[in-house]
Amino acid sequence: MEIYLDNAATTKPSKALLPLFSAHVESEWKNPSAMYPPAVAAERQLRAARETLAGAVHADPAGVVFTSGGTEGANTAILRGYRAAGEKKLHFITSAYEHPCVYECFRALETAGHSVDYIRPRADGKIHPEDVAEKVREDTALVSVMHVNNETGAVNDIAGIAAAVKAKNPGTAVHADGVQGYGKCPLDFGGSALDYYTASAHKLHGLKGTGVLFYKKNAPLKPYLLGGGQEKGLRSGTENTFGILAFARAVEEYMAHREEWVAHMAALKAYLLDKLSDIPDMRIFSPADGAPHILNLAFPGMRGEVLLHLLEQKKIYISTGSACSSHKKRAGSRVHQALGVPADITQGVVRLSFCPENTEEEMETAAAAIKEALAGFRGFIRR
Amino acid sequence: MEIYLDNAATTKPSKALLPLFSAHVESEWKNPSAMYPPAVAAERQLRAARETLAGAVHADPAGVVFTSGGTEGANTAILRGYRAAGEKKLHFITSAYEHPCVYECFRALETAGHSVDYIRPRADGKIHPEDVAEKVREDTALVSVMHVNNETGAVNDIAGIAAAVKAKNPGTAVHADGVQGYGKCPLDFGGSALDYYTASAHKLHGLKGTGVLFYKKNAPLKPYLLGGGQEKGLRSGTENTFGILAFARAVEEYMAHREEWVAHMAALKAYLLDKLSDIPDMRIFSPADGAPHILNLAFPGMRGEVLLHLLEQKKIYISTGSACSSHKKRAGSRVHQALGVPADITQGVVRLSFCPENTEEEMETAAAAIKEALAGFRGFIRR
Repeated sequence: MEIYLDNAATTKPSKALLPLFSAHVESEWKNPSAMYPPAVAAERQLRAARETLAGAVHADPAGVVFTSGGTEGANTAILRGYRAAGEKKLHFITSAYEHPCVYECFRALETAGHSVDYIRPRADGKIHPEDVAEKVREDTALVSVMHVNNETGAVNDIAGIAAAVKAKNPGTAVHADGVQGYGKCPLDFGGSALDYYTASAHKLHGLKGTGVLFYKKNAPLKPYLLGGGQEKGLRSGTENTFGILAFARAVEEYMAHREEWVAHMAALKAYLLDKLSDIPDMRIFSPADGAPHILNLAFPGMRGEVLLHLLEQKKIYISTGSACSSHKKRAGSRVHQALGVPADITQGVVRLSFCPENTEEEMETAAAAIKEALAGFRGFIRR
Repeated sequence: MEIYLDNAATTKPSKALLPLFSAHVESEWKNPSAMYPPAVAAERQLRAARETLAGAVHADPAGVVFTSGGTEGANTAILRGYRAAGEKKLHFITSAYEHPCVYECFRALETAGHSVDYIRPRADGKIHPEDVAEKVREDTALVSVMHVNNETGAVNDIAGIAAAVKAKNPGTAVHADGVQGYGKCPLDFGGSALDYYTASAHKLHGLKGTGVLFYKKNAPLKPYLLGGGQEKGLRSGTENTFGILAFARAVEEYMAHREEWVAHMAALKAYLLDKLSDIPDMRIFSPADGAPHILNLAFPGMRGEVLLHLLEQKKIYISTGSACSSHKKRAGSRVHQALGVPADITQGVVRLSFCPENTEEEMETAAAAIKEALAGFRGFIRR
């Protein structure tokens, strides 16, 4: 039996998707843009999905754009979600520890001649509204700060950030990458000053390749993908109908159990942490009030990658950081740099992330395996 | 029983995808970017899919970028597939009857100050290589001409077009939208002078939301979606693993039966045309040597939309044009305008498109239903 503790990278698709797929292959596969009744029925299913997805964050179902995932959502909001001023170069703000799908957009904006301020988290691991607001200028076009940090699980007060930004400049658009927060951490998008919020299906037991971008009615959004004019012209391309219905089904399931599931994951996190607490120099990067599903640690002296491979021999699967950055040479992650963690400790970082199906027994097994790996490798834990 | 004749809009997913989905939900859902063995296995499955998809058009599996569909592929190739020259405005060429996912990119390039030539099809419904080459200039950055026209089924000699363009300017990049051609019309992408070729899964019994962009090793391609650096940095975002494996499975199936299936669809098309041939003023826009799966007709005096709704009462599903343009006010399609069809006749256009599962009996039923509809509506066919 494997113990999967990399749920921040992706989650196991819900079993509820199986009958949904059979129905899709059998009869529900029509192109929702066509004009005959089965196609109109497909369009109606998409409408129901919009309501489900919007409901989870109190968003307006009319302000839902289906995307191919978090990356496309963030790219669309950041690169097409602000009021351009002709050739004039503008100002942008983001945090210093965003996911690459946000960070790389700001790098592209810098390359295009715009200026960007990168706000660092404080000692509590969070981006503070007043630190963001302080940097807002008259020409600040857009701010993007993530809801939940994908490596540490720190939860940012994105509604507070949006309010602080708008108080200083109502014309500044505000986006939050909600890929790790959507469904898990409560948010009243509709009641907040946020303009955009991005989510991804596969972090919540949906499928990879589907996401959603929520937007407010008066947000200055333009399309990133150009073509046939689907999604009210805001996102062209035939809709990924099965992926969307699967997303809605998974979210429906998640929302029906949210309190219970979140409490369960938080308890697992606390339990695992307790089991590991006698490892002398363990470092914990996850704030105590962080998201329930992410635990970020370092065991100095042992590289995270080595621990990962030792655990995989026991079919325990963890990560050293976000899956996305595993493509790149990891000379210490931007996230931990932003947190001021020294490079030698950053090398030892591992991330364990949970889903509602994980159990206490799995935590015990994982804790024992981590200790055994450390003992075998460093010989510093007495057996 | 429904008779589905809108396979150019989307196709029914192959039944072979059902066991594939069960396996995906059960165990094959890991993030291919992660580092432990099941994730590496997922990455290996993607590699096999690259080979299958590339094999269908003799492309290099190393030159495969998975996308969210034809729209993203075309957007990426056209907007990021040419050598920019700083602030200098460049020249582009496309045809006058492209799909919106191509056309809108060129409109955006025009808005950005570049110039675009739109090549019209000749009387045979095709874009001729010499007509394209004639417009190529020293500053022509990119040419994009579709493989198979999505409304008429006209097949363009895209290899010939690429060769003619490169002969005049080797620095001009050449893209072909292969959404309607891939798998159905043979192409030696590897042996051609084409730089890019775009395909979509759901036109070949795969799933909506998945596509592929083939590119040549030295093509000047840059990413359109920015982030974690998946797909060798050319397309960020967690790969839509199930959609990709489903695409490969569907293509495998298609390629194993291609000759038989293509012959069958061509025979159906000829059969249906024969059955309709006694309708006095029927207009045929599909070239005799067009793609096997598309038949584009007009019955002047009867609006295509009216015929569509009359047929849907008998569960016969056709379209009036591309599904994508059904979102927009159809003041006559760009395709038929480009073909020089008068606006009143354009109003009468319908498209019937086939898949290998369609039958002769369905063609007979459809032909009879069309005649009945025309008779009831116009009263000009003697019963």
